[in-house]
Amino acid sequence: MSSTRVEHDSMGELNVPSDALYAAQTQRAVENFPISGQPMPEPFIRALILVKAAAAAANKELDQINPVIGDAIIHVAHNLLAKPDLMHHFPVDIYQTGSGTSTNMNANEVIATLASLQAGCEVKPNDHVNAGQSSNDVIPTAIHVSAALEISNHLLPALEHLSQVIKMKASQVDHYVKTGRTHLMDAMPIRMSQSMSAWATQIDQNIDQISFLASGLTKLAQGGTAVGTGINAHPKFPEYFTTALSKETGLTFKPADNFFAAISSQDTAVAVSGQLKTLAVSILKIANDLRWMNSGPLAGLVEIELEALQPGA
Amino acid sequence: MSSTRVEHDSMGELNVPSDALYAAQTQRAVENFPISGQPMPEPFIRALILVKAAAAAANKELDQINPVIGDAIIHVAHNLLAKPDLMHHFPVDIYQTGSGTSTNMNANEVIATLASLQAGCEVKPNDHVNAGQSSNDVIPTAIHVSAALEISNHLLPALEHLSQVIKMKASQVDHYVKTGRTHLMDAMPIRMSQSMSAWATQIDQNIDQISFLASGLTKLAQGGTAVGTGINAHPKFPEYFTTALSKETGLTFKPADNFFAAISSQDTAVAVSGQLKTLAVSILKIANDLRWMNSGPLAGLVEIELEALQPGA
Amino acid sequence: MSSTRVEHDSMGELNVPSDALYAAQTQRAVENFPISGQPMPEPFIRALILVKAAAAAANKELDQINPVIGDAIIHVAHNLLAKPDLMHHFPVDIYQTGSGTSTNMNANEVIATLASLQAGCEVKPNDHVNAGQSSNDVIPTAIHVSAALEISNHLLPALEHLSQVIKMKASQVDHYVKTGRTHLMDAMPIRMSQSMSAWATQIDQNIDQISFLASGLTKLAQGGTAVGTGINAHPKFPEYFTTALSKETGLTFKPADNFFAAISSQDTAVAVSGQLKTLAVSILKIANDLRWMNSGPLAGLVEIELEALQPGA
Amino acid sequence: MSSTRVEHDSMGELNVPSDALYAAQTQRAVENFPISGQPMPEPFIRALILVKAAAAAANKELDQINPVIGDAIIHVAHNLLAKPDLMHHFPVDIYQTGSGTSTNMNANEVIATLASLQAGCEVKPNDHVNAGQSSNDVIPTAIHVSAALEISNHLLPALEHLSQVIKMKASQVDHYVKTGRTHLMDAMPIRMSQSMSAWATQIDQNIDQISFLASGLTKLAQGGTAVGTGINAHPKFPEYFTTALSKETGLTFKPADNFFAAISSQDTAVAVSGQLKTLAVSILKIANDLRWMNSGPLAGLVEIELEALQPGA
Repeated sequence: MSSTRVEHDSMGELNVPSDALYAAQTQRAVENFPISGQPMPEPFIRALILVKAAAAAANKELDQINPVIGDAIIHVAHNLLAKPDLMHHFPVDIYQTGSGTSTNMNANEVIATLASLQAGCEVKPNDHVNAGQSSNDVIPTAIHVSAALEISNHLLPALEHLSQVIKMKASQVDHYVKTGRTHLMDAMPIRMSQSMSAWATQIDQNIDQISFLASGLTKLAQGGTAVGTGINAHPKFPEYFTTALSKETGLTFKPADNFFAAISSQDTAVAVSGQLKTLAVSILKIANDLRWMNSGPLAGLVEIELEALQPGA
Repeated sequence: MSSTRVEHDSMGELNVPSDALYAAQTQRAVENFPISGQPMPEPFIRALILVKAAAAAANKELDQINPVIGDAIIHVAHNLLAKPDLMHHFPVDIYQTGSGTSTNMNANEVIATLASLQAGCEVKPNDHVNAGQSSNDVIPTAIHVSAALEISNHLLPALEHLSQVIKMKASQVDHYVKTGRTHLMDAMPIRMSQSMSAWATQIDQNIDQISFLASGLTKLAQGGTAVGTGINAHPKFPEYFTTALSKETGLTFKPADNFFAAISSQDTAVAVSGQLKTLAVSILKIANDLRWMNSGPLAGLVEIELEALQPGA
Repeated sequence: MSSTRVEHDSMGELNVPSDALYAAQTQRAVENFPISGQPMPEPFIRALILVKAAAAAANKELDQINPVIGDAIIHVAHNLLAKPDLMHHFPVDIYQTGSGTSTNMNANEVIATLASLQAGCEVKPNDHVNAGQSSNDVIPTAIHVSAALEISNHLLPALEHLSQVIKMKASQVDHYVKTGRTHLMDAMPIRMSQSMSAWATQIDQNIDQISFLASGLTKLAQGGTAVGTGINAHPKFPEYFTTALSKETGLTFKPADNFFAAISSQDTAVAVSGQLKTLAVSILKIANDLRWMNSGPLAGLVEIELEALQPGA
Repeated sequence: MSSTRVEHDSMGELNVPSDALYAAQTQRAVENFPISGQPMPEPFIRALILVKAAAAAANKELDQINPVIGDAIIHVAHNLLAKPDLMHHFPVDIYQTGSGTSTNMNANEVIATLASLQAGCEVKPNDHVNAGQSSNDVIPTAIHVSAALEISNHLLPALEHLSQVIKMKASQVDHYVKTGRTHLMDAMPIRMSQSMSAWATQIDQNIDQISFLASGLTKLAQGGTAVGTGINAHPKFPEYFTTALSKETGLTFKPADNFFAAISSQDTAVAVSGQLKTLAVSILKIANDLRWMNSGPLAGLVEIELEALQPGA
């Protein structure tokens, strides 16, 4: 049986696993939301830790927290990000409060525990790690940051690779002519490379559209707490925060044009989601073309032969 | 009982109402698709007629059709567009072949009938009105043109008006302070103008995103017939066509970067559709804020009082 | 220019076309909602008129309205239902108040005008035609009644016909053997009749599921006004109403088990909608099978040849 | 570094972790689909293991496999199901071949490894564990079985509990009267218990509808391999299989009415999914009612006070 220690928050005491880096509020959330067993996506947690590091840098520069504490927070945030297994410390279910309060507190508690050890003095989850912040602005910020980084670092490079590979393959098969179809009925001859050029164009167009819409993700709600007024953060916090975060990530983040909008709605994320569905439509079209071209080997279209990757069953 | 005349097409004879401007293929479609009773949207039919006028102008300049016939097509297209009741001539159900072939033929037949009277010689639906075209490229073109015109001429001006009206109203109520809420719970005070500035920002952001995505609608499939090769149109047709259409509409249209993509998929329309859904999400948010602020008059939030527009029942 | 007459309601006077059967509140809605140009679906308007006839019958039997007035309402309702062009009297846009108040008042006004002529005394839209009712319960009732009638009278017979036709055709082609596919790859031989038996089974299963879920549509909100308490209707109104409506329609309607649920949510309609989407999935599967089997005539699957219904373009 | 052993399949050799219970085909799938990191849901894997046990029982009784081997398969399947951490042996990503072939082979390989040890002779993944089966019928069967068991064992009991709790709470607060609203505007008084009775009715109606649609999940595709003909299974396999599975699970399963439909489409699952969305609509309605009733404590509706479960942030 695993041993526990006693932690407490504003609602009283409760037992936490003795080796947990998190504290009472995370544990409450674990107990309140035993729903799907699925945690927040790792890229979201990583973005949240980046947000905490950038907030500490901004608060330190603006004399909102002790520099020793600020440095400790930044240091342990970087250490956490270097760990492949950091998700062990973030057990809260993805189905929780709509505000993401529990995950924000999970990050505050884990970082406070580690930063206290690092700094040799007490670093508090709310007063220090969450200084000048609230779930109001932290969670919308982490949504934008995680999506911006995933799109910039993984999705767009993958799509550019896909486009190039299609174009290269098209040039290799330029001499093959097949039947073009309208309504699945034989129409005019078409070169295989022409069919493939359509696919590359579809991907290139998605790259352009995703790039444009994703640029809105670099505008951040951070500093708007609470409800957009910014009353609980230093007036220069938004600017110092985005400068620090831009240095951490290599992307250029800026404060949102309007904190009230950035906190009360997620329109940019909705727009990006719509575009990702468009990409899915494009890729399904390409995949279905490939499947049908490969159909056979006798009673199908038999226009190409895709390499087998595994046996059937 | 209404009288009919006999028309024929490649499949044989059939009866058409004696006063119909359309001919056999439209009538076949009316009989084949008695599905919803709902015709194509009028803006789509108007865009299709514009396409036919621009195609006639391009074909005339490129010596693909007799100039007398070309002028007649352009003349009757303009006449049709001036008629508020032009939909009487386009009875084909919106649920028809996926290619829109029946509606393309409906336009070809109506214009051919009128242009024959105008020119004093036979103008043929396929050989003249549809010259250098097929449903393959006409329908994707009409989708783009109608959406581009509706967005440019109606949606964007309406959204700009909405944004301005919200900002003006916000400045008028700047001195009112209300309760800001998180999770519907009382949080910090907020000025009414701050809440409203969020709405205006949401609309402005939608304007930017719609404008960007809609710019893709100005790239047209026309000239790609069949299946993208352009084999059935004059090589200069796409350019002459978009030049003529730009003159007709005041928007700058260009040939698609890749006709194979523009004919085999509707990705741009899908992306615009996703953005229009984002706009709907934004507007529903604003509308729900207004509804709740207006709730009461005793047991609600009672923050505003919307003017009554009609009695209840 | 069309002439008008002056009508008034609780908000004041306004001009109504002089030959309109409707009055002030309908006219206000026409002016307040110039949105889509699309009216309510005709089956919904027809169900609403049936509701008004059944309500008049119940109110008359329960001494809530003068029998002369009650008979006049029933008489003109039947006359309206006999008119193929009754939608001319129901011009209110489908995008209106979420409650459907404007369409309820449209029906009340049209019927009151006609019933006054019929009865030779004033029949009032609210006091007589809408007696014991409000949009609260009338509109949810009309949603259920129209959907129940359409499904019972049109959809289920069409599906049963489709299933029978598929089975008959299957028996005719039982001797044909084709290639069965997994992942579009050639697998085992299959008889054409076996493929077709799958389609018939899919349709039969949809018939069973639609029949079950649609039975919930026969439970009606009528009598719950307002907000489910029934305070504004005679206690026996729900039962008398459903008895009268059952006689009018040939379906057996009953009062909802719980008026508060029937008025505050549309769960039954949501469930039926989900099942209709399932039917759409089934039919798209069948249609795509047919399209691919028919692909060719040279470079496709070429397993069947569907009869041509119209030329291409 | 972890050690590996060499396994081989029809495509050649590859390295598998030396302590893995699975073999070559599972490893290929792990390498071919490094997509989401998310495995199949555990209830699906558990249903798949039940399917393998029931298939072994049927094959043994029908003399299709050696009884020693059959008993070993059944024994190790039961052992696997008793392990809380059985998912360690099922690493294949949920985004894999649409047929689920890789997960079927994963189960075949894991069970074959364990059954060989148990039986003291070689038990083969394809010839024994997958005997008379293919992904064609195994995966549709496991979809139905897992959904049927989850709905029967977890969802329906939870909904019945929810309905009872709402009714009990309603009876406790029957004396409270609040404002009923139409369009969020104050309308008539309503007892709190009446509002709550609507919620209970909504849940009860979902229970009825889910129960009906879920009954279709007890009809199974098993025995139809391949493509519905059943050519690769003993003619009595479907019946023996469902008898064995019914014994294992306590639910009454039967062979599908038509194997061609059960294998080529997933209509029953689509219908159940639509109904689960209806349930979500109902529950969101209830949750939003509770949120708004609880809004305040000063500037909201302030009709109820929900117990706080955790602090904010």
